[in-house]
This record gives sequence, C-alpha cells and structure tokens, in this order.
Amino acid sequence: MYEDRADFACALADAAAGVIMRAFRRPVEVTDKSDSTPVTAADKNAERAMREMIEREFPRDGIVGEEYGTENAESEYVWVLDPIDGTQSFIAGVPLFGTLVALLRRGVPVAGVINQPFTKERWVGVAGRQTTLNGRPVQTRKCASLDRAVLFSTADKTMFANADDKKRFDALRDRVKSARYSTDCYGYGLVAAGCGDIVCEADLKLYDYAALVPVVRGAGGEMTDWTGRPLSPENDGGGRILAVGDARLIAQTAEVLNP
Amino acid sequence: MYEDRADFACALADAAAGVIMRAFRRPVEVTDKSDSTPVTAADKNAERAMREMIEREFPRDGIVGEEYGTENAESEYVWVLDPIDGTQSFIAGVPLFGTLVALLRRGVPVAGVINQPFTKERWVGVAGRQTTLNGRPVQTRKCASLDRAVLFSTADKTMFANADDKKRFDALRDRVKSARYSTDCYGYGLVAAGCGDIVCEADLKLYDYAALVPVVRGAGGEMTDWTGRPLSPENDGGGRILAVGDARLIAQTAEVLNP
Repeated sequence: MYEDRADFACALADAAAGVIMRAFRRPVEVTDKSDSTPVTAADKNAERAMREMIEREFPRDGIVGEEYGTENAESEYVWVLDPIDGTQSFIAGVPLFGTLVALLRRGVPVAGVINQPFTKERWVGVAGRQTTLNGRPVQTRKCASLDRAVLFSTADKTMFANADDKKRFDALRDRVKSARYSTDCYGYGLVAAGCGDIVCEADLKLYDYAALVPVVRGAGGEMTDWTGRPLSPENDGGGRILAVGDARLIAQTAEVLNP
Repeated sequence: MYEDRADFACALADAAAGVIMRAFRRPVEVTDKSDSTPVTAADKNAERAMREMIEREFPRDGIVGEEYGTENAESEYVWVLDPIDGTQSFIAGVPLFGTLVALLRRGVPVAGVINQPFTKERWVGVAGRQTTLNGRPVQTRKCASLDRAVLFSTADKTMFANADDKKRFDALRDRVKSARYSTDCYGYGLVAAGCGDIVCEADLKLYDYAALVPVVRGAGGEMTDWTGRPLSPENDGGGRILAVGDARLIAQTAEVLNP
C-alpha cells in the first residue's frame, strides 16, 4: 500500500530539509546548468540524501530526480524528487522554495509532499485522502469568476522565455483580481489551503509538478494543461500547467489562454 | 534619546503582529481604496492599535499612518506607520508582507523596524548602530557589478502603472543575474541581510520606505532615488526608490534606469 510510502515521503522531506537549512542564507556557489537554471551543492546533497534512503528502504522502486536522473523507471512505484523547487528563491533567501517528493504508481501521482523547511510548512496529498497542511486538513476555496481570482506564478525569465507563452500569460494576468509572482511550489500550496485561486506556469518538468497533483486534487482543486484537460500520464501539457481551486475557473482560464 | 523609542517601535510591531496574525489566511473582506490599492480590517485595526500606544506613551509625537493620516506633523519626533506593507501578499497568504514602523527626528528616519509576523523575522535599524535581524547583527554583501546582482521588486501592476517606469525597470531586470518579485518590504530585509543586492521600486510613499532607510543603511547599504541621489527629507525620488547593498551598484543601476 502506498500509505506507508506516504509516511516515507515525509521522512525524505525531513532528510532534505536538514541539508537545505544548513545552506540557507549562507554564501553559496551557484552553477548554471545546461538549461541555464541554477544549481547549488544543497540541491545535489539533498537529492543524494533522499536517493540513498529510497535505495535502502525500497530498493526496487524507481527514482526520477532533478539532479541525478532516472533509475528503474519501469517499476510499479517511482519516486519523483525535486530537492529544491525554486532554487533562485533559495539562493536569494526567499522562503517560497520547497522540497517536492512525489510517488507515482504506474505513472499516476498517488502521493505528494511540498515541504518548506524555513517556515516549517508541509503539505501532504495522498490519493483518496484530504490534503493536510502541517497535519490539519485544508481545502480550496470557491471562486466562480476570473475577476475575483488571486493568481500565483513563478513567471520569471526562464519560465516564460517563450514569447507566445508570455503573451498568453499576460492576458490572464490582466483578467484576474490580483497576482503574486516568484511563488514556485508555494503558490500551489496556497491554492490548496484556500488562500488563492489559480497557478499558471510553463516549462514545468515531471519533477516540478508531480508532487503538486495529489496536494491540489486532495484539497478539492484540479490540475490541467493550458487547454483545461486534466494532467495524466499521457498529458503533461508540454509543461504548460494550471492549478485551480475551483473547477469553474478552468474553462474561463483556458479561454483567455487560447484566444 | 531615540534609543528608548527604538525599543518602543518594537513594541508597536508586536501589537500590530497580534492583530495581523489573528486575520492571516482567514476569509477577509477586501476594500479597494481610492488609489485602487486594497485594505482590510487587519490593516486598520493594526494601525489603530499602534496609534493608541503612541498617543498614550508619547502624546506629543507626531504620527503619519497609511490608513488614518497625519497628526502633529510639526513635532520633533514623528512615527511613520504602515501596518501591513504588502496587503496583496497578506490577502494571498504569502509571508513576504510586513509591518513597517519608522521614527523620524526632524524629518530624518533615525529608527526603523520591518516585522514579518508569520516567519517571526524582525529587522531593526537605528542610526549609528548595526542593523539586527532577530537580535543578530547583519550586513549587506559585496557585489561589484550588475551582472552578478540579485534584484528584488514588488513589480506589480499598481507599482508600475506608469509605462515609462515599467520600461526602465525592465531594462534593469534584463541586466541583473536574477530577479524575484512580489517581495514587498521583505526584499529590503534580504538586502540588509546580505542575501540579495538591489531593490528597485516605484510609487512608494513615505510610510512605504521610511522604516527601510535605517535598516538598509545600518547594514552597510544605501537608499537612493533612481538617479542615485541619497534619499533625504528633501528628496523622496518621486517615489522611485533604490536600495543597494554595495554602493558600487548605485552608478551602474542609475545608468541603466536613465539611458
């Protein structure tokens, strides 16, 4: 059962938190990767700590990690790890980054953890259960129309390097009540907690969004691509992803994004 | 002496924090003010709590508050209060807003507090003393050139409603190493703590920036207008304000902002 593995996902997040907090707001050497996103020793060491735990505890499970690639991808259970989602925030001391741990079963995310080690906030989503924030159940809020919606997005140069994506995003931004940026994974947690209504992002990889799916859906929300089709093993939206707290926003948002 | 009043500034921030945290991430009624910025009961109640304390403790001091205006502006000491700097972040559950308390002596900011009540972080700047974060001295970091700099800015539609300001800001954004947005007062705290290098903002009022001046300067940084002239009672930059951790960035930044 994946209930045991959901508890283990939290233990993985704890291990990553230890590594990350020793490096947070200390002078750090930053390397630019081939995709021009930054990486630090904390990203690498935190992922290594988690991989070693998985290899010890569930040696037959697969692993997909942002920094160290894929092993046993054909296993029934596959762990998807992003040691620091929001490395730019981490480097700048902004506590909106997080560790993302997802468990896939036959390609479907069945458990996800968003862990913010500085504010000590942890969202846990498990298929068939209500999402929790620090152990307390959370749920998304009602929001029937775009003009009342609070939008989150990381929305930096890397995410919207594609000019057409940027233009479509800007059209959405111009339709909502208010927007907050550079939110990384934290924006999805806030939608799950009923503090905001939409996250709209591009250029996301499996390790960026897999953990978010059980968190958002388990709180009553939905995760889709920019056309409004639910995310699934067959549909990753080409990395263009929406999270909404109230499903009534899907059609309205997709209409603005696809004029 | 204003040392006593600096301690009192922290007591004011504590009083505001109590009011604010009772309302944080709870359903909240938002009113749009005449300048189309939002306000909540928490903004108003937090400012009222602080004003009552000042009127009791220092009845002859002046007060300038975001929500309830100006009293005794001609006093030697004037308190400048922004109960929630970053009301949009507060409403959306993002912990980058803060309470700002400044003490002016004959128009010059001699003490400033940035208080983030959710993360429990407090920056205190007092003229002639080293700035502290939660009681520990902090200082800005060295950064000799723009292409290595981390930039913070609130950078939302309200701040850059002026298209020319937006164009100039975008030119700066395109020159720095990386940028984080929607940072409100927290960005200035991060520059003071040596986590980032520049804040560039527009449309700031006295209550938005007065508290930041002693915090940034007391950590080794500087606060100027967009041309690089230091802020003073005679120069508020028309609300266009820079904070830098390393003074070598002033000329480079001003050159990009004023092509």
